[in-house]
Amino acid sequence: MNIKQIDLNCDMGEAFGSWPMGNDQKLMEAISSANIACGFHAGDASIMRKTAQLALENGVAIGAHPGFPDLQGFGRRNMQLSPQEIYDICVYQIGAMFGTVRALGGKLHHVKPHGALYNMAAKDIALAKAIAEATRAIHPELILYGLSGSHLISEAEKLGLRTASEVFADRTYQNDGSLTPRTHANAMIEDTSLAVEQVIQMVEQKSVFATDGTKVGIKADTICVHGDGNHAVEFAFTLRKELLLRNITIKPV
Amino acid sequence: MNIKQIDLNCDMGEAFGSWPMGNDQKLMEAISSANIACGFHAGDASIMRKTAQLALENGVAIGAHPGFPDLQGFGRRNMQLSPQEIYDICVYQIGAMFGTVRALGGKLHHVKPHGALYNMAAKDIALAKAIAEATRAIHPELILYGLSGSHLISEAEKLGLRTASEVFADRTYQNDGSLTPRTHANAMIEDTSLAVEQVIQMVEQKSVFATDGTKVGIKADTICVHGDGNHAVEFAFTLRKELLLRNITIKPV
Amino acid sequence: MNIKQIDLNCDMGEAFGSWPMGNDQKLMEAISSANIACGFHAGDASIMRKTAQLALENGVAIGAHPGFPDLQGFGRRNMQLSPQEIYDICVYQIGAMFGTVRALGGKLHHVKPHGALYNMAAKDIALAKAIAEATRAIHPELILYGLSGSHLISEAEKLGLRTASEVFADRTYQNDGSLTPRTHANAMIEDTSLAVEQVIQMVEQKSVFATDGTKVGIKADTICVHGDGNHAVEFAFTLRKELLLRNITIKPV
Amino acid sequence: MNIKQIDLNCDMGEAFGSWPMGNDQKLMEAISSANIACGFHAGDASIMRKTAQLALENGVAIGAHPGFPDLQGFGRRNMQLSPQEIYDICVYQIGAMFGTVRALGGKLHHVKPHGALYNMAAKDIALAKAIAEATRAIHPELILYGLSGSHLISEAEKLGLRTASEVFADRTYQNDGSLTPRTHANAMIEDTSLAVEQVIQMVEQKSVFATDGTKVGIKADTICVHGDGNHAVEFAFTLRKELLLRNITIKPV
Repeated sequence: MNIKQIDLNCDMGEAFGSWPMGNDQKLMEAISSANIACGFHAGDASIMRKTAQLALENGVAIGAHPGFPDLQGFGRRNMQLSPQEIYDICVYQIGAMFGTVRALGGKLHHVKPHGALYNMAAKDIALAKAIAEATRAIHPELILYGLSGSHLISEAEKLGLRTASEVFADRTYQNDGSLTPRTHANAMIEDTSLAVEQVIQMVEQKSVFATDGTKVGIKADTICVHGDGNHAVEFAFTLRKELLLRNITIKPV
Repeated sequence: MNIKQIDLNCDMGEAFGSWPMGNDQKLMEAISSANIACGFHAGDASIMRKTAQLALENGVAIGAHPGFPDLQGFGRRNMQLSPQEIYDICVYQIGAMFGTVRALGGKLHHVKPHGALYNMAAKDIALAKAIAEATRAIHPELILYGLSGSHLISEAEKLGLRTASEVFADRTYQNDGSLTPRTHANAMIEDTSLAVEQVIQMVEQKSVFATDGTKVGIKADTICVHGDGNHAVEFAFTLRKELLLRNITIKPV
Repeated sequence: MNIKQIDLNCDMGEAFGSWPMGNDQKLMEAISSANIACGFHAGDASIMRKTAQLALENGVAIGAHPGFPDLQGFGRRNMQLSPQEIYDICVYQIGAMFGTVRALGGKLHHVKPHGALYNMAAKDIALAKAIAEATRAIHPELILYGLSGSHLISEAEKLGLRTASEVFADRTYQNDGSLTPRTHANAMIEDTSLAVEQVIQMVEQKSVFATDGTKVGIKADTICVHGDGNHAVEFAFTLRKELLLRNITIKPV
Repeated sequence: MNIKQIDLNCDMGEAFGSWPMGNDQKLMEAISSANIACGFHAGDASIMRKTAQLALENGVAIGAHPGFPDLQGFGRRNMQLSPQEIYDICVYQIGAMFGTVRALGGKLHHVKPHGALYNMAAKDIALAKAIAEATRAIHPELILYGLSGSHLISEAEKLGLRTASEVFADRTYQNDGSLTPRTHANAMIEDTSLAVEQVIQMVEQKSVFATDGTKVGIKADTICVHGDGNHAVEFAFTLRKELLLRNITIKPV
C-alpha cells in the first residue's frame, strides 16, 4: 500500500520586541513544521525561545529561518551580499536557533531561508550553495527546505543534504514548473477550494495544472502555509481537514 | 611536584563590519584562551568566523563573549534587562558562537560575559544565575569565566558548571579581595613590572597585596589580558615571557 | 471669563517596518497633540512621514518623541548614557523629526521624551538638562513636555523654554504630588468614569486627590492619553466628550 | 580675468561608537567640504556632532552624507528600496544632520549620497529623483553633490536645485565620460603626480584624457578626496599644494 504523506510548514516567530505578528499559537495546531525567524529580519532571542517552546509542545518540527539583516524591510528587500557573507550570516543564525532549541531540550530539524534570501538563492547557484554549506556545517542531518526545482534543492543534494521541495497552495504555476510571478494577474489562487484541490493533486498525483492548462510534474515534500492575512488560520485548518479526509498523513519531512 | 599553570585570556573579535579593532593576529600568539564577541556589542558573523579560525590555528581555546545589545556603546553601558531577557540573549549569542566554532570543526570551550554585563552580573545573583543557566543550557561542559569571588563564579558552581576565576594584571585590589573601583586614583597598575609581579604572586602564592598593604588570598585561574591600548601586545608578550621563565605553564583552564 | 482649556497628547507612530501598533488613524480624531517616535525605540523614516502627515491632516500638533536606542525593548529599559550622549541622541532624533515635518510643509511643535528616558530624566537633573538643551538647540520655540513637577519641567524653564506639565488620567497620585509607582496595587485607575473625573478636577481645580485622600495641588497643561490597550480609543473619545461637555477646550499647549 | 576655483570634498565622520576611522582632524585642513555620515552606514549622533564641530572650526562646508541602513556593510552593498523608501531615509538622515549642524550654530551646505546609494542613484532616474526631492524638502538651497554627468545631477537640476558635479582624482575615465569600472585593470590611478595632473586638466581645461587617449569634456565642480588608505592625508595635501601653486582657489561650491 502506498502511504501518502505531506508536511505543512509555516513561518513563525515573526514578532519582534513589543510588536506581535501572526497567530502562532493557533497555527501550531494545524502544521507539522515551523520555520522560526532568527533575529535578523524578525524575531529576537526571547521570541525565538517562546516560539520554539510552543513548537515542542505541539510536536511541530523546528526549523531555522535565516534572513537578510534588514529588520525594517522584514528581509524582503534584495541585498547584494557575497556568498561568503551569506554563508556567515546563515551559520550565525542557524547556530543561534540550534542553541535555542538545544537549550529547550529539543532538536533542530531543518533550515528554510526567508523572503528575499529564499528567492535570490532559488535562482543563484552561488548563494544556494552558500546556504547549503552553512546548513551542513551546523549539522549534516539538517534538512534544507527550498523551492521545488530550484538551485536550493540541487545544491543541497550535491552536498549530500536531505531536502524538502516546497510548493505553494495559493500560487499558480507556469508550464515549466515555475511559480507565476506575483506581477501577473493570475499569480494567486484566492479561492480556498481551488487551493486545496491543487495541493491534493500535487500530493496524490505529483502534478499541477499550469496557468495554460498543461499538466506539469512537480515534486512536493512540503506545503508552505502562510501565517499572515485574514484567513491564514482558517485556510490552514481547512487544508489540514481536507488532507486528513483523504488519508494523507501530515508530518514533517 | 607542584605543576603551576595559568590561563591568559583576551577579548577578541571586537571589530565590526569595516571597522577593525585590536591586534588579534599578534595577540593570539601570546594567550591561551580567546573570548570572541558575538555580534551584540561588537563582532559580526564574518568576524566571528575569522577570529575563531585564527584561534584554532594558534591552538587558543575559544570562548563566547556575549554582551548587551548596544553596538554604539560597545556593551559598556548598563542596561536594565530582566534575568529572563539576559538568559535569552546569552543563549542566542552563545548558540551563534557554538555554531560558528562547530562549522569550523572546532569546539567551544568557555563563556565570559562582556563589559557592563560582566560587571552587573558579578554583583547581581539573578543575572549571574541567568548567565550560568544559559551557559549550561548550551552545553554542560562549557566553563564560565567570571570575576574571582563574584556571584558569577558561585552561581555557576551551584549549577555544577566548571568555572574559571578571573584576576587582573593591571588592576589593584582592596582588602576584601574586590577590585579597586576605576574611579579611585590608584585603581590601575601602570607599571609593567609591577603588574607582572602581581600576577606571579597571584599564581604562585594565591594572594595579592591590597592597596592598604594587606595580603589577601585570591583564586586565580585565568588572567585577563587587555587587547586595546598602545602597549597591549607588548605587555602580553612580556607577561608570557616572565611566566614561562618561572616554569609556569600557560594553558586554557 | 475664565477660558478653560487642556491638551490631550498621545504617543504615535510606534509601528516599525512591517509591524503595526496602535490605532493612530482613529486616535488622531480625539487628541490635540501627537508625540511621534523617532526611529530609536520605535518608528522608522517611512512611518514618521506617514504619521506626521496624518497629524497635519487632523490639525494635531506634532511633537518629536525621542527614546533610547533600544528597539527590542521599546525604549522601556533603563540605559546608562552620559548627559552628553543623551544630548546627542536627542539632537539627532529631534532633528530627524524636525526635517520630516518640514518636508511636509508643517512645523514641529514640541518634544516629549519616551519611556525610560522620560522616567529617568524626570528624576535626574543632568539628564533633564541635556534633553532641554537639545530641544532648545534645535529650535528655541519648541515646547518641552514633561511630568508635572519634575526636573524636566524645571530644567526647561531655567533655559527659557516653554513647557507643558503632563498629568495622567489613569494613574493615581501620592500626597507629594508624585505618581504612585506601578508596583503598588492602587497605581492604576481602571474605572473610566473615575479617570475622567480625576482629569476634570485637575483641569478645573488644579488639584488631585492623593491615594490617602489628601487634596494636592497639581499643574496640568496636557493629559497623556494611552494609545495601547483594548480600550484606548474608546477612553480617548469618552474623555474628549466629557471635557467638551464642560466647555473645556481641547487644544495644543 | 578668469578666476579658477575648485572644491575638495571628503567623506568624514565615518567612525562608529568605539571604532575610529580615518584621520578627520588632519584632513579637515586640506579640504573645503565634508560629507558627514548620518548614522545609517556609519557615524552616530555623537560622532556627527564632533565631526560637524571640527568642520566648523576649520571653515569647511558641511554636507549630509546619507546611506543605506547597512552598518555592517558600510552602505556599500546594493539594497533594493523603493523610491519612496529612499526619499524617506534621506529626509530622515538629512534632517538629523540639519539638526546637528543647527544645534552647533552652523548651516548645512550640501547633500552627497554614500556608497551603493550614490552609485545606484547615478544610474537610476527614480532613485536620483527621490534623493533630489528629499534634499529640496529639507531646504531648497542645499546643493546636491553627484557624479558628473549622472542622473543625480540632471534630476536635481530639473527640481531647480543647485548641484556640484563630482570628479575623481584617482579614477580613470572612458571615452563617454563615465568612470572606468573598478573591475577593469586600469580603473585606478596609483601615481600621485598623474592623479594631480588629471585634476589640474579637469579644472583648467574642463577635459580629461580617457583610457583610449580621447580628450573628453567634463564638468568638475568638486573633487572627491578619499579619506581612507595609507596615503589619503598625504595625497590630499599634495593635491591642495599643487592646486594653490597654479592659483586655483580651493573653496566650497
